[in-house]
Amino acid sequence: MTELDLAQLQRRLAEFAAARGWEPYHTPKNLAVALSVEASELVEIFQWLTPEQSAGVMEDPRSAHRVADEVADVLAYLLQFSEVLGIDVLEVLAAKIDRNELRFPVPENKGRYSPE
Amino acid sequence: MTELDLAQLQRRLAEFAAARGWEPYHTPKNLAVALSVEASELVEIFQWLTPEQSAGVMEDPRSAHRVADEVADVLAYLLQFSEVLGIDVLEVLAAKIDRNELRFPVPENKGRYSPE
Amino acid sequence: MTELDLAQLQRRLAEFAAARGWEPYHTPKNLAVALSVEASELVEIFQWLTPEQSAGVMEDPRSAHRVADEVADVLAYLLQFSEVLGIDVLEVLAAKIDRNELRFPVPENKGRYSPE
Amino acid sequence: MTELDLAQLQRRLAEFAAARGWEPYHTPKNLAVALSVEASELVEIFQWLTPEQSAGVMEDPRSAHRVADEVADVLAYLLQFSEVLGIDVLEVLAAKIDRNELRFPVPENKGRYSPE
Repeated sequence: MTELDLAQLQRRLAEFAAARGWEPYHTPKNLAVALSVEASELVEIFQWLTPEQSAGVMEDPRSAHRVADEVADVLAYLLQFSEVLGIDVLEVLAAKIDRNELRFPVPENKGRYSPE
Repeated sequence: MTELDLAQLQRRLAEFAAARGWEPYHTPKNLAVALSVEASELVEIFQWLTPEQSAGVMEDPRSAHRVADEVADVLAYLLQFSEVLGIDVLEVLAAKIDRNELRFPVPENKGRYSPE
Repeated sequence: MTELDLAQLQRRLAEFAAARGWEPYHTPKNLAVALSVEASELVEIFQWLTPEQSAGVMEDPRSAHRVADEVADVLAYLLQFSEVLGIDVLEVLAAKIDRNELRFPVPENKGRYSPE
Repeated sequence: MTELDLAQLQRRLAEFAAARGWEPYHTPKNLAVALSVEASELVEIFQWLTPEQSAGVMEDPRSAHRVADEVADVLAYLLQFSEVLGIDVLEVLAAKIDRNELRFPVPENKGRYSPE
């Protein structure tokens, strides 16, 4: 993890959108939809791969670049969505991990899992 | 934005999965799919709302909680996915913003937009 | 495949929505979003399964019911979306298969594939 | 709705995949994922449109073609998924409409709605 700061990137994204007059498009609904579209573009890279092939996706420079690019897009929309609604992403994630530690005590439930 | 550290949360998530023996499930493919499922659960909250209604989603404590929870889930899977593949999320986002600044010079293109 | 008629089910869905005053919600955008949310609910059933486990999903009556239910939801929204925009789903699918037969001649390209 | 037959199109899709040796890729999990990826490509067309703009999407021939194409892809994967698992899509949809008629009696619940 680099020394880059998440809050600073979030600010750059907000300024980027404002400078281009994109704010009217950036309703919470549209940003959530855009986030899910980007998440699906990430999935698309893996859709026909076996689990084993999916583990090697960074070895090919072209697919590695695609993956990195989609990760950036997902994070960009997640930060813009959260900015618009005043959500602190690190705070909500920390709170969620705390809840999950209570909900999934250590040795049980090694099977299927949904973190919700 | 709080003082919480993204890298530290990413580490907690990795330890959480390891302690529960979930690593075999956490192939890149499965984590990308789980990310997109969570993104859709976020979208579901907004699906029948007008743009205006979507802007008020944090006013109702119940929907505010749901939104925060889904944001946490999306970020959790994004960090786990990136951990497994050795991707630095802040670095790829910074690089992407740099590219987008070249790609979308300031005054043009105030219309439809895909950040890819 | 039963003797049921797709056009007739599409008509029932339109009448169902009209009788409940849901038409204002049924913009093409909202219906496309709802379709993708239902498709993700279908995916959710499979997200932690191996390819082999996924082939046995109909053996457990509870997951069989869930799968059938999500298939119905996806088709319902696809038909409602298409109704609203005047798209004949069978016609567009037939045309697409015709195009794909030209695009993917028989013996080649047994590898990764996107039908688009 | 044309005279085309859904069962016949489903058979053509199965033969198409078999002739190209694609069956090993067509696990239920992969087909569900591919379905959701196509649904998101449909959503992408609408992501920055207002509800009003979304209603006019068939007026522009280029976007009309994209929409029709994505509808075909969604239906193609839905039929292939259902074929692999032995699900009769018309039967499950008819059963679902029956259940929804009991679940949403006519005059109430004109607000938010999830057909599940």
